[in-house]
Amino acid sequence: MSFEITILGSGAALPTLKRNPSAQYINCNERHILIDCGEGTQNQIRRFGIKIQKIKHILISHLHGDHYFGLIGLLSTMSLLGRTDSLTIYAPSELEEIIKIQLKASGYNYDFKMNFTPLNSKEIDVIYEDKLIVIWTIPLNHRIKTTGFLIKEKKKDLSINGELFKASKLSLTAIPFFRKGKDFIDEKGKKHKFKEYTLKSSKSKSYAYFSDTSPLNFLSDFIQECDALYHEATFTEQHIDRAAKTLHSTAKQAALFAKLSNVKKLYLGHISSRYENTKQHEIEAKSVFDNTEIVEDGMKISL
Amino acid sequence: MSFEITILGSGAALPTLKRNPSAQYINCNERHILIDCGEGTQNQIRRFGIKIQKIKHILISHLHGDHYFGLIGLLSTMSLLGRTDSLTIYAPSELEEIIKIQLKASGYNYDFKMNFTPLNSKEIDVIYEDKLIVIWTIPLNHRIKTTGFLIKEKKKDLSINGELFKASKLSLTAIPFFRKGKDFIDEKGKKHKFKEYTLKSSKSKSYAYFSDTSPLNFLSDFIQECDALYHEATFTEQHIDRAAKTLHSTAKQAALFAKLSNVKKLYLGHISSRYENTKQHEIEAKSVFDNTEIVEDGMKISL
Repeated sequence: MSFEITILGSGAALPTLKRNPSAQYINCNERHILIDCGEGTQNQIRRFGIKIQKIKHILISHLHGDHYFGLIGLLSTMSLLGRTDSLTIYAPSELEEIIKIQLKASGYNYDFKMNFTPLNSKEIDVIYEDKLIVIWTIPLNHRIKTTGFLIKEKKKDLSINGELFKASKLSLTAIPFFRKGKDFIDEKGKKHKFKEYTLKSSKSKSYAYFSDTSPLNFLSDFIQECDALYHEATFTEQHIDRAAKTLHSTAKQAALFAKLSNVKKLYLGHISSRYENTKQHEIEAKSVFDNTEIVEDGMKISL
Repeated sequence: MSFEITILGSGAALPTLKRNPSAQYINCNERHILIDCGEGTQNQIRRFGIKIQKIKHILISHLHGDHYFGLIGLLSTMSLLGRTDSLTIYAPSELEEIIKIQLKASGYNYDFKMNFTPLNSKEIDVIYEDKLIVIWTIPLNHRIKTTGFLIKEKKKDLSINGELFKASKLSLTAIPFFRKGKDFIDEKGKKHKFKEYTLKSSKSKSYAYFSDTSPLNFLSDFIQECDALYHEATFTEQHIDRAAKTLHSTAKQAALFAKLSNVKKLYLGHISSRYENTKQHEIEAKSVFDNTEIVEDGMKISL
């Protein structure tokens, strides 16, 4: 099973020719998720070879344009390409009207169903869950209501050691027990320990998305030991006042949060167009948390 | 004085990596005009070195997304870059609400004034006029209300032949008369013919924009002898039925219209993404009207 993130846009409010505005595509155990959808996201999807119609969940963190202006174009393209599969959009409640008013003006109707799930930007909450993954919202602190996300794999079933199991001549009905880490008692009352017939399971992975927000260190418990944290780093320390005023973070602040959270790796994005390069972001973040990487459009992260 | 068109997007409803959706930038005697604004137009403006804040007039032909989904992002960028100069948007009336609902959701207010001028898509009408240029609307025939545009330079003042004028020792008060092609009678009652003191004026140029529409041959009189006609050519003859059904044009239909209109040159765009190249469009159009060119993103047309 795969857990892979593709960075479609790593820029901030002002797009540049190098950094598109925010968007990320996530394939988590064949759940295809788009987080944010800045202008031009559909072109990035094309450029980086992602299958547009596979996307089933779209999460919009907040309604600043650099996080959603590309959504209406993406939906329109999905429709023109013949989509009939439903799509769920998790977003601030105002987005539904924004989409519908434009759909009405165009005289079109999509042949697929859109489910709008309004986001609760005040509390940690589960917005999606199935047998393999769960998606949590994280209340962020920005100028308008803004939500981060935590995508977690559920505890994985154990793999059966086929050779040993075959040799044991146990009934196949034992398998579901063993997979779940439970011992099995056969018809004669004999107990068979799951540990003897299973391989060690691969660890469940998790990915947290924090954009846009001022630093929120009190949330470090919630994402503790997360495999990857994407955090906005709009500014360097030189512009820490500007970060405070606009409720954004500096690279160093994001790194401090990563350290408190004991995450495995920190990825920084949402880089302001005022910086010619990200050297200073990197130096400042790594002074606090070494395992940091600045993302670029097109980068793939495998967990 | 210049009259130059830059093609920012030459594609149709489905953008490709080669063709952005519709947008054109026009500098007509230092009047800076944007016609249509598909998704990604602000990036094309950056890519092709156009000064974004110079744009003062935005004309939106109709509210299919490939003609306006980039507008909200463009306005947002203009604002973030500190614009205070007002801007006039000529568009179907619904656009004002579409912009305002998104502005409200973002919690922003622009520091510049937007004037919304609703377009009359039923009649030929003047929507802008100053001492040098005039912009006409042209009612097109598409699935929703759609407007084409004709941008015309006004009759230009004559240039004074400086040497002859100086030698004549005539009063400077004669100059405005001569510039307008009028004879001048001096204080002694003597008539001085303007033709003797002026150079031949350069011809006033005109540019017509037809997208999206079914063929409208009855409009050929209105754009008669136009210097350049941009006409949509979504389809080739192979898909003439599809063109008829969707109220679009084939390249050959556009060429026939160009021929009837006796335009100097025909430019074809709004090419459907279904075609790998435009060879067939070109062959079919040139079979009717030889002076035809298929536009590409980034192309500049000087009149």
